[in-house]
Amino acid sequence: MNQIPTKECDVLITFPKSAQEETVKWLLQCFRGRVPELIVRVRYHNNTKIWGLYFTTNNRSLLRGAEIHGLIKEVKVEFGGGKREFTVDEKEIFLHNDDIDRLLTSEERQCIVRSMIDNLRALKNETCGNIKFLQGQAIVPLLESKGIIQHVLPIHDSKDLSFLKNAWVKKFWKNQPLNKIAEYFGIKIGMYFAYLGHYTKALLLPTIIGIIIWAIAGKEQKIDDLLFVIFAFINVVWSTLYLEHWKRRSSEIAYEWGTLDKEDDLLVEPRPLYKGNLIQNPVTNRTERHYPAWKRNLFRYFVTVPVICISLGVVFGVMLLIFMVQDWINLKISKGFLPSFTKFLPKVALALSIGILDNAYKKIAVWLNNKENHRLDDEHENHLIIKLILFQFVNSFLSLFYIAFYLQDMNRLREQLAALLITRQVIGNIKEALLPYVKNRIKLFRIGYEMTSDISPNTLTKQATEIKEKIVSRVETEIRHRKPEKLENVKPESSVEYSGPTLSQAEIEASMEKYEDTFEDYLEMFIQFGYVVLFSSAFPLAALCAFLNNVIEIRSDAFKLCHTFQRPFGQRVQNIGTWQDALEVMSVTAVIINCALIGNSGLAHRLFPNFGTTEMIVLIVALEHIILACKFLLAYAIPDIPHWIAQEKARLEFLRRGAFKTLESKVQNQSSIDHGNSPVHNQDSPLENCDKYSKRYAEKDIQ
Amino acid sequence: MNQIPTKECDVLITFPKSAQEETVKWLLQCFRGRVPELIVRVRYHNNTKIWGLYFTTNNRSLLRGAEIHGLIKEVKVEFGGGKREFTVDEKEIFLHNDDIDRLLTSEERQCIVRSMIDNLRALKNETCGNIKFLQGQAIVPLLESKGIIQHVLPIHDSKDLSFLKNAWVKKFWKNQPLNKIAEYFGIKIGMYFAYLGHYTKALLLPTIIGIIIWAIAGKEQKIDDLLFVIFAFINVVWSTLYLEHWKRRSSEIAYEWGTLDKEDDLLVEPRPLYKGNLIQNPVTNRTERHYPAWKRNLFRYFVTVPVICISLGVVFGVMLLIFMVQDWINLKISKGFLPSFTKFLPKVALALSIGILDNAYKKIAVWLNNKENHRLDDEHENHLIIKLILFQFVNSFLSLFYIAFYLQDMNRLREQLAALLITRQVIGNIKEALLPYVKNRIKLFRIGYEMTSDISPNTLTKQATEIKEKIVSRVETEIRHRKPEKLENVKPESSVEYSGPTLSQAEIEASMEKYEDTFEDYLEMFIQFGYVVLFSSAFPLAALCAFLNNVIEIRSDAFKLCHTFQRPFGQRVQNIGTWQDALEVMSVTAVIINCALIGNSGLAHRLFPNFGTTEMIVLIVALEHIILACKFLLAYAIPDIPHWIAQEKARLEFLRRGAFKTLESKVQNQSSIDHGNSPVHNQDSPLENCDKYSKRYAEKDIQ
Repeated sequence: MNQIPTKECDVLITFPKSAQEETVKWLLQCFRGRVPELIVRVRYHNNTKIWGLYFTTNNRSLLRGAEIHGLIKEVKVEFGGGKREFTVDEKEIFLHNDDIDRLLTSEERQCIVRSMIDNLRALKNETCGNIKFLQGQAIVPLLESKGIIQHVLPIHDSKDLSFLKNAWVKKFWKNQPLNKIAEYFGIKIGMYFAYLGHYTKALLLPTIIGIIIWAIAGKEQKIDDLLFVIFAFINVVWSTLYLEHWKRRSSEIAYEWGTLDKEDDLLVEPRPLYKGNLIQNPVTNRTERHYPAWKRNLFRYFVTVPVICISLGVVFGVMLLIFMVQDWINLKISKGFLPSFTKFLPKVALALSIGILDNAYKKIAVWLNNKENHRLDDEHENHLIIKLILFQFVNSFLSLFYIAFYLQDMNRLREQLAALLITRQVIGNIKEALLPYVKNRIKLFRIGYEMTSDISPNTLTKQATEIKEKIVSRVETEIRHRKPEKLENVKPESSVEYSGPTLSQAEIEASMEKYEDTFEDYLEMFIQFGYVVLFSSAFPLAALCAFLNNVIEIRSDAFKLCHTFQRPFGQRVQNIGTWQDALEVMSVTAVIINCALIGNSGLAHRLFPNFGTTEMIVLIVALEHIILACKFLLAYAIPDIPHWIAQEKARLEFLRRGAFKTLESKVQNQSSIDHGNSPVHNQDSPLENCDKYSKRYAEKDIQ
Repeated sequence: MNQIPTKECDVLITFPKSAQEETVKWLLQCFRGRVPELIVRVRYHNNTKIWGLYFTTNNRSLLRGAEIHGLIKEVKVEFGGGKREFTVDEKEIFLHNDDIDRLLTSEERQCIVRSMIDNLRALKNETCGNIKFLQGQAIVPLLESKGIIQHVLPIHDSKDLSFLKNAWVKKFWKNQPLNKIAEYFGIKIGMYFAYLGHYTKALLLPTIIGIIIWAIAGKEQKIDDLLFVIFAFINVVWSTLYLEHWKRRSSEIAYEWGTLDKEDDLLVEPRPLYKGNLIQNPVTNRTERHYPAWKRNLFRYFVTVPVICISLGVVFGVMLLIFMVQDWINLKISKGFLPSFTKFLPKVALALSIGILDNAYKKIAVWLNNKENHRLDDEHENHLIIKLILFQFVNSFLSLFYIAFYLQDMNRLREQLAALLITRQVIGNIKEALLPYVKNRIKLFRIGYEMTSDISPNTLTKQATEIKEKIVSRVETEIRHRKPEKLENVKPESSVEYSGPTLSQAEIEASMEKYEDTFEDYLEMFIQFGYVVLFSSAFPLAALCAFLNNVIEIRSDAFKLCHTFQRPFGQRVQNIGTWQDALEVMSVTAVIINCALIGNSGLAHRLFPNFGTTEMIVLIVALEHIILACKFLLAYAIPDIPHWIAQEKARLEFLRRGAFKTLESKVQNQSSIDHGNSPVHNQDSPLENCDKYSKRYAEKDIQ
């Protein structure tokens, strides 16, 4: 199938097939009327039978957007070099300031356009169909959440994409082009792949040690006691050091990508779906929605926490019950009281109930999280992650805990762990990368088949012609009323087009599935990390399995992003957020579980045959406490930010402060020269101008 | 004895009686030659037979010092109000800018003068007696550390001091005037008293609960089992919540006192005794000493850690041995094999050995810490605190651990705890406040006695007359060579004076002992906190004892500062530093110890009679893990900084950013108007000026 590249489009909004023509028209009018600097074109995708709005904007708006988003850009060598926050006033000092396509990456253009789209706010008492907007609410995100808009997607840049397909997806044994990835898919996704690569490399150590231990112990078909203890210990130390190292590495990456200095939370725009009463923000003096913290906390501690606890209790109970039934059935089968096929019944029941519970729990978690009404996107996401992790933890590890501590069967634990590590991950890769790709191919093939059989290139349906005429006439009316300087950008002749038999890029990408989030990808790694550090002393090859899987995982995740899913919007993050905390908690849990495993498996008894049970437990508990204390000491002693970055930050702060003071005195001197006033009067100006500035800023945002 | 107030003196340097006249003269010449803006007078204290240098400075230097120190000052209402960093250029907008005595507190003046004194740096190959200086080394701190200078002390302000004596030392049941304290003694000491007051108030809760539990349990002469467990639990929860609350309160205080936003570590001046090679600071481009971090770390991990561990091991061993000998002797006495006076032998041995070990350990710790050569004053101090705490922990708690877990004698634990809490604290208060006061009185009395008997007001010794003449003539020669504007401040007629029969304020204060640091005061509270949270379930009235002690402690510490010791220099701190961490560690230890006490005391056995030892231990360990998990969750969930402060900080950041951008565009516009240049050229100026600024700054520091 041929693909026609879609040009002059940064962001595409598509509607479901069932969408009303009025809705599309209403939205188009809203954009044209209230966000005039956005250039919108409308098209009907004849092949997929959906409406699409194509957005782009002019260079001036892009530059202003770059300033508002605080993008960090390179400064020309003659102006001091290095990187600085872009400002329109200082435009000339930045590299490539005359070529917007080299100044801004496609990801940055798209983020700017997206934020302009989100800035379409509802007027008082405005409605769309049966949806009532609150005053000032962001229209597009709400319509998207209600399903009236199907997708808001950025369009791929074919040159950069094909570079990534070649240099990233196909180059199996090479380092990932992390900077390019972050540039193209945004820093959040870049950070994920940086983490994945770093974790995979770090896995080499336990992989090698695991192979050695397996080789030594393998001959006797059971792992030597002392080796078991040593390996458990090595695992714990490795997990601590690895996490500390990643924290430092992640700061370095964030520094390079310009997100280490996160903006103050209270200065970040609230997320579009944030609800609350309109008040004046005491920080910026802008009018904003505000939801009091005590309401959120009340809900969290008196609704969220109990509901989550009960839900987890139910999951725990159901799973435990099924495990017990399984054991009971196994016993009966071994005694011949039950036919052997019955042993599959609990397995089926488990699979079914986990599916149902997972679904129900997810809905509850999302509902609770929405009700908590967090102000910022990343708070919202982090709290959802915490809730979802808890379920996945129970789901993924309960069976192993059950085998390890209730049945105390180390052989079965080893088998189960191997089965989980291998099957779960292979299935996971197929499910997340291959399946959507195949589905997408089939879908496109069907569309292509329908196109060639149903419609010949020259026959347009009557309905479509009518629509075309209606819209073109309206567009032209509008153009007549516009100011001349905007005309050049609008290109009315191409404003409504009919996509022909070969599919346009936009049409193909809109038919792809949406890449939801990095959540599933991180979750997979989190669970895998758990398998490796919690139980790998029972199965020394766990790290090897994980390592092999991850080598494939990197490329299959890359494949997913480049081939299978819609391009995602870039997000700026400082680090991997909640996942860091989750991994730390896992690493602490690993100490406890490993000590318990050592105590439980009778190994310690064989090592110290003279010890009674009580002494043994006390010994194990003491060991655990000492290891935990060492762990915390280590984390305390290693600085989270490498010295060179601390130094860079200090240098910038020093320059900034110096520059500010110099500027201030300069303004003062100049004004006193200009006006012959005493300097006293002019001292006031910074504060006065501050207010002016904040007003100007506020005006920008309301547009 | 009459006291003549010493005027026109902020800081006083005194020499020991053995000081050479040449040294004094050399130092005086150094100051007059290299730090001309310092106004120095020399006096011979005839009564105490010591030389003194009296320092003050002119208003211009004070203002510049206020800018360099980044002092936060109130802005006049007509210029926007609030507080801002003081700058000389903007002087006019600040409240009281025309009256230096109201603009700067005496503590701030003294800090500025002190830093000017410390800025007297050695030239290449300079020597003083047998001391060789490194180039650029701070002369006064080195001479002080070598004992050639006896004291560098700021002089009391009699008005403010008498206010504090009345409103703070004497007002037993009133709140402390914390702002005044911080203003007069500096923020570090203010923070200590804020902490002490907050802790004392927080103690009310366990005090009341402890009294109730004691009242209920008292009748049966043994504490009811369940109450014991409940009280242990309450203690742990209380300690966590109290520490979290203090963290927030401390941020509030620091915000009010303007130290919450600590300056970047790398921008702070290194401490005067910091050693290293001269390199160019990559941050500020100033030439500074630098000591590589790897050298420090190497020393820390391969010398400090082993030495400290061995030392603590020795202390541990010696104490344990003495305890065991004590028990052995007690046994023998009870059987009649030994005379009963022998039971005092181990006690004496313990007291002696602790004294010796304490001394030796302190010397080792200080030596190790100096060798680690930390760059900043507060790093230096924090690392010393950690080292010293470890010893004090063993010293203070080993006997209790021994009784609780080795002897398992709860009654003896209770007695020991009560004895420690009451005697240790009463003795402590006497030792630290009363004793130095009495000593000081006796010393002054003796001087007074000698004065009235030996010397009549009109007889000056021949030697003193000669000195006076020599110096006066030199001062006058110098004055003749000075610029006229400085003459008015020097007042040659009073430049050398003879203190008469009534002692001058400076003479009295120089004869007082130096207030070393808040270390001893914090240490006392730290150990007390340990007694309360670690073992109070064994002795419910521990909190009451602590509370009563602290009510007295606040005033006796206040008395100490106002009456007994020399005035200390103020220090700017952000929080209580390492002590916060130490208290947190103590609180975690409390969970472990309390759980162990419950498990050990047989209480749990009586509560769950059906449980075997193994089940019991597992139960206790599980309980401990759950409590610890809750503790960490709680600490994670409660934000360290109250919301209103986060908001204030965000607001300032917003204003700052706005002001900077406005200024920048203003400079640009004005320059382009003035010179008719394209704006491109002027973009360069902030960076260019930056360099100029940093050079200017560097010049200031070298003076």
